[in-house]
Amino acid sequence: MKIINKINQKLKDGQTFFSFEFFPPRTEEGVENLFERLDRMVAYGPIFCDITWGAGGSTADVTLDIATRMQNQVCVETMMHLTCTNMPVEKLESALLEVKKAGVHNILALRGDPPKGQDKFEAVEGGFSCALDLVKYIRKEFGDLFGICVAGYPEAHPDGIVDDPELMEQNYWADIAYLKQKVEAGGELIITQLFYNTDIFLKFVEDCRSVGITVPILPGIMPIMTYGGFKRMTGFCKTKVPADILEAVEAIKDNDEAVKNFGVDLGVRMCRRLLDAGVPGVHMYTLNLERSAVGILERLGLIDTARVPKPLPWRHVPTGTARAAESVRPVFWSNRTKAYLKRTQGWPSYPTGRWADRGALQYGSLADVPQYMRRHTSTDARKERARAAWGSSLESEDDVKAVFAKYFKGEVKLFPWSEVEGSPEAAAGEEALIASGYLVINSQPKLNGVPSTDSAHGWGAPGGTLYGRAYLEFFCSPAAWESLRARLDAAPSVSYLAATAAGSPQGNLKPDDVVALSWGAFPGKEIVQPTVLCASSFGVWKDEAFELWLSEWAGLYEEGSPSRQLLTGIHDNWVLVCAVDNDYVAGDLAKVLLG
Amino acid sequence: MKIINKINQKLKDGQTFFSFEFFPPRTEEGVENLFERLDRMVAYGPIFCDITWGAGGSTADVTLDIATRMQNQVCVETMMHLTCTNMPVEKLESALLEVKKAGVHNILALRGDPPKGQDKFEAVEGGFSCALDLVKYIRKEFGDLFGICVAGYPEAHPDGIVDDPELMEQNYWADIAYLKQKVEAGGELIITQLFYNTDIFLKFVEDCRSVGITVPILPGIMPIMTYGGFKRMTGFCKTKVPADILEAVEAIKDNDEAVKNFGVDLGVRMCRRLLDAGVPGVHMYTLNLERSAVGILERLGLIDTARVPKPLPWRHVPTGTARAAESVRPVFWSNRTKAYLKRTQGWPSYPTGRWADRGALQYGSLADVPQYMRRHTSTDARKERARAAWGSSLESEDDVKAVFAKYFKGEVKLFPWSEVEGSPEAAAGEEALIASGYLVINSQPKLNGVPSTDSAHGWGAPGGTLYGRAYLEFFCSPAAWESLRARLDAAPSVSYLAATAAGSPQGNLKPDDVVALSWGAFPGKEIVQPTVLCASSFGVWKDEAFELWLSEWAGLYEEGSPSRQLLTGIHDNWVLVCAVDNDYVAGDLAKVLLG
Repeated sequence: MKIINKINQKLKDGQTFFSFEFFPPRTEEGVENLFERLDRMVAYGPIFCDITWGAGGSTADVTLDIATRMQNQVCVETMMHLTCTNMPVEKLESALLEVKKAGVHNILALRGDPPKGQDKFEAVEGGFSCALDLVKYIRKEFGDLFGICVAGYPEAHPDGIVDDPELMEQNYWADIAYLKQKVEAGGELIITQLFYNTDIFLKFVEDCRSVGITVPILPGIMPIMTYGGFKRMTGFCKTKVPADILEAVEAIKDNDEAVKNFGVDLGVRMCRRLLDAGVPGVHMYTLNLERSAVGILERLGLIDTARVPKPLPWRHVPTGTARAAESVRPVFWSNRTKAYLKRTQGWPSYPTGRWADRGALQYGSLADVPQYMRRHTSTDARKERARAAWGSSLESEDDVKAVFAKYFKGEVKLFPWSEVEGSPEAAAGEEALIASGYLVINSQPKLNGVPSTDSAHGWGAPGGTLYGRAYLEFFCSPAAWESLRARLDAAPSVSYLAATAAGSPQGNLKPDDVVALSWGAFPGKEIVQPTVLCASSFGVWKDEAFELWLSEWAGLYEEGSPSRQLLTGIHDNWVLVCAVDNDYVAGDLAKVLLG
Repeated sequence: MKIINKINQKLKDGQTFFSFEFFPPRTEEGVENLFERLDRMVAYGPIFCDITWGAGGSTADVTLDIATRMQNQVCVETMMHLTCTNMPVEKLESALLEVKKAGVHNILALRGDPPKGQDKFEAVEGGFSCALDLVKYIRKEFGDLFGICVAGYPEAHPDGIVDDPELMEQNYWADIAYLKQKVEAGGELIITQLFYNTDIFLKFVEDCRSVGITVPILPGIMPIMTYGGFKRMTGFCKTKVPADILEAVEAIKDNDEAVKNFGVDLGVRMCRRLLDAGVPGVHMYTLNLERSAVGILERLGLIDTARVPKPLPWRHVPTGTARAAESVRPVFWSNRTKAYLKRTQGWPSYPTGRWADRGALQYGSLADVPQYMRRHTSTDARKERARAAWGSSLESEDDVKAVFAKYFKGEVKLFPWSEVEGSPEAAAGEEALIASGYLVINSQPKLNGVPSTDSAHGWGAPGGTLYGRAYLEFFCSPAAWESLRARLDAAPSVSYLAATAAGSPQGNLKPDDVVALSWGAFPGKEIVQPTVLCASSFGVWKDEAFELWLSEWAGLYEEGSPSRQLLTGIHDNWVLVCAVDNDYVAGDLAKVLLG
């Protein structure tokens, strides 16, 4: 969906908004770290996130890849920067075609910096020499498909910042006239260069309005994070820094922590001034860091990090995409959202309300899940971390059990069956279950009429009432499975499915049945039923769940090592079981398992 | 769906089934009475119902019309008889095309009786002379579309019943050979002529199997209802009546009640014998009457008239039709199911799970609802009944209120806003509301975790847990509306919509919002949400609700009469309000209304 449409809705509803800007990291490790940060920061609800184009076009492919993953796996409305630097028109076209296909439908059109080693921008052969031509080109070739954003320079473009006041004034107004041309050619939104003097920004908005520029103008806020960075950036951009700010920073320049805190304080003061003056939202230059940007927004009251709003109990997807109305998913991927999004990417429609309507859709094969989703084994550094968490060698099943126990106690934050680093939501009794030999990988407590604002289990708008069936998914040894199966068959309210790595799913759930695992009643709305369980998706999931024993855990240890043999043995012989207690009022699923 | 597929499923599940046969009444009044009876009898769950072809083709159009309504408005899997009598092939084709279009996809193919005034059957010019040719024709022209049923004669076809035992035996086997041909040509199911000697039927089945007829053979059971009818029918069909039965009937022939009771006893005995011998189900010749057929099935334990199963809180639709998966409907038509089915007939798909997915579908116009659906004014006799129930003249609004009060007290069974004769399900407090001037036409009590087997409000399979939001729909005077509206706006948990006959809906419900009114959680299943409320369907319904003041009530009184003026005045000025209390745990909607 075009960002301008989302902004217009916010303007209509009188709601303040914010956005985050990131740049492409230079290493693979850095990219993965960025995605972890994105996961956390997107949860706070930015109206969009944007990713800059590699300086001089050097990291163009990385930008394209990151933008695609932001839109489709992080699930945030994504804007990609695109510059003319080193980009002949064919390259621009192929980049635009690629993001179009990936569903990234917002572009920040820029001229870009001069190529490396040059002082002055010159158009590459067959390319454009200014952002205006790029805007025109996008509109001409792609019609109204892309939302186009353009850059505004409250202090004039650095190229035009000169000492002569008269010439300076001329350059400033020439820049505004040029900005107007960019808007008339198709720019729907303006984001400004960083600044530290809010008066300058507010005068710039007034001047833009005076020449007939009516589109929203978002202030670009660059929190001061380090003294060195601040000096470099304001020098490069020729930013006018008010004397009091400069003095304050100089006074604490050797105290990194004090600089950071000052940066947050200053950011809060600047944003308050802007919002009070009627600015509708703020654009945060994060420099790929979390603390300052989030800290400013938190103190402004624009986010509440203690209660991250979850419209559904899994990550929702941006409006305007094919998946936007999606409201049902199988429980199995609840800790592997990206793998789920990847394996279902390209479905012609996504289930809303009932899973049964979409039961026939085919999952992408496990081979389609890219290597970078092997979260714990994709790089040597990650392997090292995982070994540190789970043990550099494992000698017995008890060592394996101990890893599960530590994870559910919160003593380790990594887990082969979770893409997300952190502690699992506590259902009930995982520790006792693990002690009894059930290696729990997923669980959900029973809920009977819990408020949607519940701090532990809440999701959705306030005022709703939530329900959920107790759910447990675990590996168990072949020996334990024999007696457990009899208990599950005898339990009147339990539905279950089970399978070995090589076998087909068995259990008491009929092939066409779908079990609701979580649902909610909200005032004035239809019943929402976001999580379900069914036999056919279990059949797909169980291959993935077993494979993680090998790719995410056994792969940490040398071939032939006892640790690897131990894990491979579990993979080959143990049984994956998922069990749900239909009685969400009085059932006791853990008791059935413990016998 | 083909009946044979439903029967095969029952055979697989080891479930006994039954079906009802009806004939086309000769008067319009008779047709309407038949449909009331069908409504009741279909609730008991026959596997199908069939309607005979008018004798000599005289009532062919009526049969086509009844079959269409049975399939689409009564919502039962319908089989239509079709005979060769007076039917040249073009007429057969057009009849088949018509029922095909109407979704009636089961035909009982018969030769038929000789035309009126003839003793012997002769093919009409361009027509067929036997059922076999008709079966072949249907298969040739329509492929596998229709389920085809053929008739079996356990005592041989009456034309071949002769005194000479040797010739009789020859005719009997010739009939079976002919039946085999009909099956080989496409007959998938056999229903037999009536009989009173179960040994004859069981021998017939054995003989059919001996020549290689493998399709199911259903016994046609004709309960003895009157002495005269019994004598006529057995004479016409040349049925062998066992001596003990004949004696018993002769002994009580002057006592109608005794004959009826004997008929039920005999039917029970016969069916028990057949079912014990492995017959999978019974086909009841109802003669358009309810008591004997239902009485027999009840005593056999095949139906429980005290608990009519409701898969959803509204009438479900037969499997295999486009609507079979339909699981959501707006609350407004809950007492006007036929009008709803008619106004939504032909939707390319029907909502499952969520109403929001189908919000854009257009309703048929009010003018499409046929005259016969003006239940209380479609005939003079009906008008007379309605005036008897609601008063031959009305003098004041209090008289109108009194009619509503009597209806909700169960003192009158007719109601302008209900297609069904009977007492409304009691929600809470209608009487007090009516006394306060709110003319309630629809209501639903709040339910918070009621078992699905609840005798008052239960629906769906046993073991489910039901929820519902309190709902009230009523007309109120313009004066009452002013103060009520303020109370509704102030009530924190109430959503409402309201409109006059001429005005557009207003209220606090957003145009795109859909409110769940009833839902249920069943073991091993997704959440079912069968009843909802939304602004767009209220906009359609309110025209129908207002129109019923005129067409179903005011129309009973002479033009210009005070009664008519009174009702027309209410139609013109009063407000229709629907209100739902989102708080299904602790809300008190009636209290909000009463102030």
